[in-house]
Amino acid sequence: MNEIIKQLSSRKSIREFTGESVEDDDLELILKTAQRCPSSINGQQISLVYTRDKEKIKEIAKLCNNQQHIEECDVFITIVVDFNRTAFALEQVNEKQVIHSHAEGILVGAVDAGIMLNAIQIVAESLGYGTTAIGAVRRDPEAFIKLLNLPTKTFPIVGTTIGVATQKAKDVPLKPKIPLKGFAFEDEYNDEEIKKSVLEYEQTMKQYRKENNMEFFPSYCERTASYYKKLYCPKISESYKKQGFEFID
Amino acid sequence: MNEIIKQLSSRKSIREFTGESVEDDDLELILKTAQRCPSSINGQQISLVYTRDKEKIKEIAKLCNNQQHIEECDVFITIVVDFNRTAFALEQVNEKQVIHSHAEGILVGAVDAGIMLNAIQIVAESLGYGTTAIGAVRRDPEAFIKLLNLPTKTFPIVGTTIGVATQKAKDVPLKPKIPLKGFAFEDEYNDEEIKKSVLEYEQTMKQYRKENNMEFFPSYCERTASYYKKLYCPKISESYKKQGFEFID
Repeated sequence: MNEIIKQLSSRKSIREFTGESVEDDDLELILKTAQRCPSSINGQQISLVYTRDKEKIKEIAKLCNNQQHIEECDVFITIVVDFNRTAFALEQVNEKQVIHSHAEGILVGAVDAGIMLNAIQIVAESLGYGTTAIGAVRRDPEAFIKLLNLPTKTFPIVGTTIGVATQKAKDVPLKPKIPLKGFAFEDEYNDEEIKKSVLEYEQTMKQYRKENNMEFFPSYCERTASYYKKLYCPKISESYKKQGFEFID
Repeated sequence: MNEIIKQLSSRKSIREFTGESVEDDDLELILKTAQRCPSSINGQQISLVYTRDKEKIKEIAKLCNNQQHIEECDVFITIVVDFNRTAFALEQVNEKQVIHSHAEGILVGAVDAGIMLNAIQIVAESLGYGTTAIGAVRRDPEAFIKLLNLPTKTFPIVGTTIGVATQKAKDVPLKPKIPLKGFAFEDEYNDEEIKKSVLEYEQTMKQYRKENNMEFFPSYCERTASYYKKLYCPKISESYKKQGFEFID
């Protein structure tokens, strides 16, 4: 098992930090290295805004549903879908960008943002830091847009905390995942395996909660339901429109 | 510099394969390890369909704009946004999923797909394989949906090749990226730096092409324009709708 597989196999989200700093050199190394991740058509339609200022991090935590661990992190990075950069690139060769007015623009930006997020986290973790992905930047996109001074054709889509993990956070046992046979299929999707594996996973998670004295936590089905039965980010389509995007063909 | 930073810093897309196989054990290790990547609310709204069958890979290559290197790869993995799994999970606790009918569902799926894609590629590369991300699975989503037998509430959003890189592909020099100061900002987005860095990068890329006898390739601005001045994936919004998704609040 090589170092990379070792790290990725034992990866967990860290939601408690010691308050110690991320070294300046480390932060630069994280940003530079993550930037090497692939980008669709090498368009580089992602920008990052990182925040170290304690007051601003507090504001971000508030916007992200008052998550305590965000307030405690040392660096918060917002991953921004950026078709403002590419629009300027097109102007240089006297062309006009249309892709942000189509569903494809929104999707390619979102996928590239996920790629960048994972690269940032993997590099940060390789340097000994802890991270958690924060989808809650989408709860109030307009407030983020204002806070980070984002122009049209850009969108704040996801974020990540970085900080030094407490021992307690490191010691949280690894969460089981959906059985592999219900997650990765050869040739064709298998709905029967999907269903079987959800039922199996539900039991595995209940057992895991029990073994780790976490029975007060909801089960997989309960937790997923608590989010997906309602709309918890109710301003996304509206904010995208205001930023100049459209989800049409 | 640790192993992870070393690998990610020198990462390049591989578009020429020897035809050698990805070992079965390696493929399983890639899938299992990548599955450990973070997933929003631990919903695990991603599934994978992997294809090793040469005839099917040929069909995939055809659907993806006839890209020769796809035809030559040993494994093609389609990353599928999967709200069919979560809908079934909600049914188990007598709840009804609504998130796929909202922009948030489409976005969280796309970001999580990007995270998964990057994790797959990093693990595959750590085992010595080469990969390229394939956004062209979105050119004709309905054909993919049919080929992989995908039910409603799922969407084939991006793919990746995996194979053994030829020496020639490994020897391609590393492509420069946008200057760091025009990519990562502290506290606030800086439009002036964006513009300056695009102009600087354009010159860097022209120089890079020249030094590597690749002057027949378009510049950054030319290449980005060739894609983003038109709609090259014209069926996405329509296909999403047919699969039961909506981009509304």
